[in-house]
Amino acid sequence: MAMKSEDPNYSNLKGQTVDLPEDLFAQKGKEKTPPPCILVIFGASGDLTKKKLIPALYNLMNDGLLPANFVCVGFARRGKSAEDFRKEMSENIKEYSRSKTEEKELEMFTEKLFYFQSNFDDDQGYENLTPFLEDLDKKFGTNGNRIYYLSVQPSYFSVISDKLKAHNHIYDENDKEKFSRVIIEKPFGHDLASAQNLQKDMTQNLSENQIYRIDHYLGKETVQNLLVFRFGNSIYEGLWNNRYVDNIQITVGESIGIESRGAFYESAGLCRDIIQNHLMQVLSLVTMEPPTSLDANSIRDEKVKLLSAIRHYRDDEIEKYALRGQYKEGFVDGETAKAYRQEENVNPESNVETFAAMRLSIDNWRWAGVPIYIRAGKRLPKRATEVCVTFKRPPNILFNKNETFNSPNCFIFRIQPNEGISIRFNSKVPGTANLIQPVTMDFQYESFFGKGVPEAYERLIHDCIMGDNTLFARVDESLHSWEFISPILDRWKEKPFTEEEFYSAGTWGPINSELLLREEKRSWKML
Amino acid sequence: MAMKSEDPNYSNLKGQTVDLPEDLFAQKGKEKTPPPCILVIFGASGDLTKKKLIPALYNLMNDGLLPANFVCVGFARRGKSAEDFRKEMSENIKEYSRSKTEEKELEMFTEKLFYFQSNFDDDQGYENLTPFLEDLDKKFGTNGNRIYYLSVQPSYFSVISDKLKAHNHIYDENDKEKFSRVIIEKPFGHDLASAQNLQKDMTQNLSENQIYRIDHYLGKETVQNLLVFRFGNSIYEGLWNNRYVDNIQITVGESIGIESRGAFYESAGLCRDIIQNHLMQVLSLVTMEPPTSLDANSIRDEKVKLLSAIRHYRDDEIEKYALRGQYKEGFVDGETAKAYRQEENVNPESNVETFAAMRLSIDNWRWAGVPIYIRAGKRLPKRATEVCVTFKRPPNILFNKNETFNSPNCFIFRIQPNEGISIRFNSKVPGTANLIQPVTMDFQYESFFGKGVPEAYERLIHDCIMGDNTLFARVDESLHSWEFISPILDRWKEKPFTEEEFYSAGTWGPINSELLLREEKRSWKML
Repeated sequence: MAMKSEDPNYSNLKGQTVDLPEDLFAQKGKEKTPPPCILVIFGASGDLTKKKLIPALYNLMNDGLLPANFVCVGFARRGKSAEDFRKEMSENIKEYSRSKTEEKELEMFTEKLFYFQSNFDDDQGYENLTPFLEDLDKKFGTNGNRIYYLSVQPSYFSVISDKLKAHNHIYDENDKEKFSRVIIEKPFGHDLASAQNLQKDMTQNLSENQIYRIDHYLGKETVQNLLVFRFGNSIYEGLWNNRYVDNIQITVGESIGIESRGAFYESAGLCRDIIQNHLMQVLSLVTMEPPTSLDANSIRDEKVKLLSAIRHYRDDEIEKYALRGQYKEGFVDGETAKAYRQEENVNPESNVETFAAMRLSIDNWRWAGVPIYIRAGKRLPKRATEVCVTFKRPPNILFNKNETFNSPNCFIFRIQPNEGISIRFNSKVPGTANLIQPVTMDFQYESFFGKGVPEAYERLIHDCIMGDNTLFARVDESLHSWEFISPILDRWKEKPFTEEEFYSAGTWGPINSELLLREEKRSWKML
Repeated sequence: MAMKSEDPNYSNLKGQTVDLPEDLFAQKGKEKTPPPCILVIFGASGDLTKKKLIPALYNLMNDGLLPANFVCVGFARRGKSAEDFRKEMSENIKEYSRSKTEEKELEMFTEKLFYFQSNFDDDQGYENLTPFLEDLDKKFGTNGNRIYYLSVQPSYFSVISDKLKAHNHIYDENDKEKFSRVIIEKPFGHDLASAQNLQKDMTQNLSENQIYRIDHYLGKETVQNLLVFRFGNSIYEGLWNNRYVDNIQITVGESIGIESRGAFYESAGLCRDIIQNHLMQVLSLVTMEPPTSLDANSIRDEKVKLLSAIRHYRDDEIEKYALRGQYKEGFVDGETAKAYRQEENVNPESNVETFAAMRLSIDNWRWAGVPIYIRAGKRLPKRATEVCVTFKRPPNILFNKNETFNSPNCFIFRIQPNEGISIRFNSKVPGTANLIQPVTMDFQYESFFGKGVPEAYERLIHDCIMGDNTLFARVDESLHSWEFISPILDRWKEKPFTEEEFYSAGTWGPINSELLLREEKRSWKML
């Protein structure tokens, strides 16, 4: 199926297919120039740095989106020369970068890389960091601007921000000369109380505007496109409410297990890893009211408003509407998969969930009465993150009148893999009978815009350099999400897993997840 | 882009892609059996018979949709043996039929073909027809049932129906034993008065339910699908009104000229040939209210209601809102095309329109304030029949804020060629800037349902055999359409063409057609 980039506004006398009035991509030139800065990555030996952060910086440079005056400093415990660090990162870029890696570009990039060895809690290290960075400022014209990326264990978030503050690495928010920002990785807290405490710690050192809570889901093109789809088009917003929508489903499925992250998973579990952050973010973008502008706070205000409208379960409702699961042995992609309890660094009697499914209600005018079904899990049949908005059925008076088969319309947003949007609607089956059949229209990013769609981390790091925190979670978003999730986790913690809460690896979770919907005459839907 | 025929209602525990609960196509078997009958085609030597009717009957037989007891009799002036008629038709089938033509099938079909020579106004002929058909009844078990297909000059409609009645070929409408039906080709009248007269003549011989006014547009899959699209889905009906729709456009473009039909065209013109019938039918299906059932009269009642809501022009409005054009010399598909006035059998000072564009208003709650732009013409740049429903722009507060470029959403129905549906919406351009760009999702019949979509005449002949007149125009539809069109034609007739009413062959009509929309800050839209 063809896709065209014609503007239907413009036509001329001779032909009807017309060119875009100007190359939209050329408008990139109109953006503000990214300011000079030094990015310090805490946890530079970690996987995230290797696989995501450094390749993202390299891609940004190739796209001309890094500041001309830019330095990246790896901060980690291991002793290592800048030379070694550069070599290592070159290899990572070759393996993980989406852009071409030619020696010239690689060299140009790695010249901006430096390494600083210190423990995260070592005062001397932070003290020595000052002349180190000031020296780079002089050499590279980075102007004193700092971004600290905390790609470390959550337990270090407070420590590092304390030390940074204590050793004058954090400037006043209102400093007009230079800026300092801190990007922190998830999770933001372990439950409501710890998130509140963490926030208290952080704000002793930083103002809220200096904190960039990263949620890489928000950097994904499809997630951002949820906003464009909803508010850049007129045909959807009119349908986006309880008059037309029957239910909304969000699935975050992974086919892999916990891999080598047993220790982390034992302390986290599926809800903390996926639902409290990613899934709630996606949910809020799908269901929030239109913001009055694209300013960070306009959007985040609406997200918070939505998150605060999610009905909290009464104790007895948790059992009914919030289900957990843990994977048993099974088959995934044709191979045997071991049970969660048999994974490395996992307690053989572990009480940690690897699956969760919930039925949410949003108590506002738009969504009253529309159930929101969410589920996420490890060792499901496939890796797929999808949002499915299912519409009410048309009155069953016209077509397939005597058939039970009358398919509801759906909009499906595929967030990964194969980012795209699908619309499912009914069409006439050609022929003399008035039969209808559901068909699907697809829009795939890659087939329209080509390969090389930027990775989530590119967008997010770029935004932080630009000082735009729209796509980062504000503290109240995180806290509202915890307010909903924490009581569920508390409740689950009290009770050991029952037999029916286990599911075979390679299936869509415990049977109760299906029954949750079936009791309401619905079923999980995916492409 | 992939299309899938999955039913999102059904899911199972293992996988999420599921089969249709049963093969929908198999439901064809549930239809009623077509009753035995003889089809008499008046004008059996004409082009329509050769190119459309006989091939359609052959295709119907191959699809198992003809009655087992069926005969087709060619009725025409020329002397010809059944043998010759069969041979001739065999050749036509080979050339024009969409289904495979194997000798066995051809023979099976042509055995049902007979020929009857007579003038259309010759009483003796009609007298002799009786034993001829009764003999066939005996041989083929056609039970006395008759369908008379008047593929003749409109001037013969009344004559033939008179003669048929006079010689007892028309039965009482309430006859329970056997039926007689008359299919008449367009045009139904030449203006309001002649249409009223024709109806008066016809109803002296036939009841309204026995008259099948064919409009082959109604047999087209996409036209029928307009109803499915609108009423078999829940996401469209909510948008289908003046709150969301900015304007509706219908274009019926042909790149060919009048070919050998000079004499016909001189007496007809574009409005009578295309707008009064086809275009008004399509318009009524796009804009009518939902019928309460799919019964013929429920649908036709709604169409009439719509047609009667079209605002009639005041005299001074005709000039402003109804434009005509006539093609001059030009280039079409890289070849020189002569002017209409130079065509064979055309008056060199002809005052007949080959193009028309109008702005209509529908005075009802749904469409008040929504302009309907229609245009049709010969010698346009391409052959294309399209309906474009353009939606209001979203409030221009979020994306491309400072750009004039903010594309409205459109639904485009392509009726020919490449029957299909397209939706145009805005998507985010991948990258760090918040740019949006219109993209198009396509649904094409052929790529989903494969080749071999039935031709319009197949559906319509089959429906007539079944006694279903849903897809035929009821007399009041035709008369309401004439009520709107006739005054325009009268007004035009008074005035010779002015220079600016001519357009070069191969362009989209006179400049005024563009200005008609441009004055309202709109433009013609096509795929």
